[in-house]
Amino acid sequence: MRSETVRRSIVKAVSWRAFGSAATAALVFLFTRRAALSLGIGLLESLSKIILYFVHERCWNRIGFGKHELRPAVLWFTGLPSSGKSTLAEGVSRVLGQRGFRVEHLDGDAIRAIFPETGFSPQERDSHIRRVGHLASVLERNGVLVVVSLVSPYAESRRLVRRTCRSFVEVYVSTPLEVCERRDAKGLYARARRGEILDFTGVDAPYEAPERPELTIDTSALSPSEGLARIMDYVDKNFSTAAP
Amino acid sequence: MRSETVRRSIVKAVSWRAFGSAATAALVFLFTRRAALSLGIGLLESLSKIILYFVHERCWNRIGFGKHELRPAVLWFTGLPSSGKSTLAEGVSRVLGQRGFRVEHLDGDAIRAIFPETGFSPQERDSHIRRVGHLASVLERNGVLVVVSLVSPYAESRRLVRRTCRSFVEVYVSTPLEVCERRDAKGLYARARRGEILDFTGVDAPYEAPERPELTIDTSALSPSEGLARIMDYVDKNFSTAAP
Repeated sequence: MRSETVRRSIVKAVSWRAFGSAATAALVFLFTRRAALSLGIGLLESLSKIILYFVHERCWNRIGFGKHELRPAVLWFTGLPSSGKSTLAEGVSRVLGQRGFRVEHLDGDAIRAIFPETGFSPQERDSHIRRVGHLASVLERNGVLVVVSLVSPYAESRRLVRRTCRSFVEVYVSTPLEVCERRDAKGLYARARRGEILDFTGVDAPYEAPERPELTIDTSALSPSEGLARIMDYVDKNFSTAAP
Repeated sequence: MRSETVRRSIVKAVSWRAFGSAATAALVFLFTRRAALSLGIGLLESLSKIILYFVHERCWNRIGFGKHELRPAVLWFTGLPSSGKSTLAEGVSRVLGQRGFRVEHLDGDAIRAIFPETGFSPQERDSHIRRVGHLASVLERNGVLVVVSLVSPYAESRRLVRRTCRSFVEVYVSTPLEVCERRDAKGLYARARRGEILDFTGVDAPYEAPERPELTIDTSALSPSEGLARIMDYVDKNFSTAAP
């Protein structure tokens, strides 16, 4: 974290202008051997360059080339287990990270792994969603773009989180249950069907689909790269100025 | 969040140099009406200014004036209720914020207010400490200096948090129990003594004092501004380059 005072910048600007114009004057003197002329050009340069630099900056200000800008936001991926939330969220996080931005990926499972005492009752799930939401909102406030992948099955919990964030984008990963269950990346559906896991979303716990999500991605209809492209398109349109 | 590509910076530098030197050449021509001389000075200026700018930057690099730098860290204030943790933490957060840095103050009570379901049993307190610690470590990783004020009575929980942070500073606010109880800012000691609150640290719940805290501040021996000065001294020595 760096910061320079305005005074340092002003003193540096004056010092550079004095140094630069003295060099110009010296150069003119070297060629012409006329002291008054050299001094005159040096002084006039001092003034004109300040104005010219300003004009130069304002012109570049209108040119988008090579400029990236990203407004902090919270991209919240919600959907059934194995719907593809984490893969998509990781993709977004990687692409934005490569562009040089601060991105934090909060994964529901990873956070549960740190806090194994978090249960799966409706109340504990609700707390878990709101805690991750709180973490996301604090990061967003500190200039970070946050990508969250979390089953987050309750519409009301997600609504609460939306209210605590400044820019909340609900990405509904709408892959159908049959497809999620066929994938079953961690073998959890199979265990839930055998009754080894209780309160498993999609099997014996409800999932309340978003009514008006900002984005809906069905990973059974789109390839991972198509899904990612659609999300990045949204991010670029709403939060970032991408380099051409 | 802004970022400009290296290509944009290079193109801008070349464009400015061309623009600036063309202006110098024009200036010389205006005074002398000699085209070859003007062109020669313009070209020579282009080259020499690049070197001079570099020399100018390197010289300033050695001058500390007006330069601030702050490494992200976690300042963790632990101590009995009403010991003065929040006041000190707020002070640090205010001073660093005024210097233009990203600072986040996480207050235990404020976070409990958002999550009223957090209880006071040893297990729930431990979870609470580790959750706030996790939040602090994620913020620290994202370049934020985090100031935490939390009773955090368990040495083991604090040790776990220390391990998840990169730069962890334990500030033990060691104000004696009698003084804290006499202050009793929120009237909680009185209620705990009357048995209206159970598991209250200092009354019927233990407080494990840090064995090797980085800093110890007894607010019954130091005024708030003396305490704050001592902490800022530590921060400036270890994490920041303060402006003179």
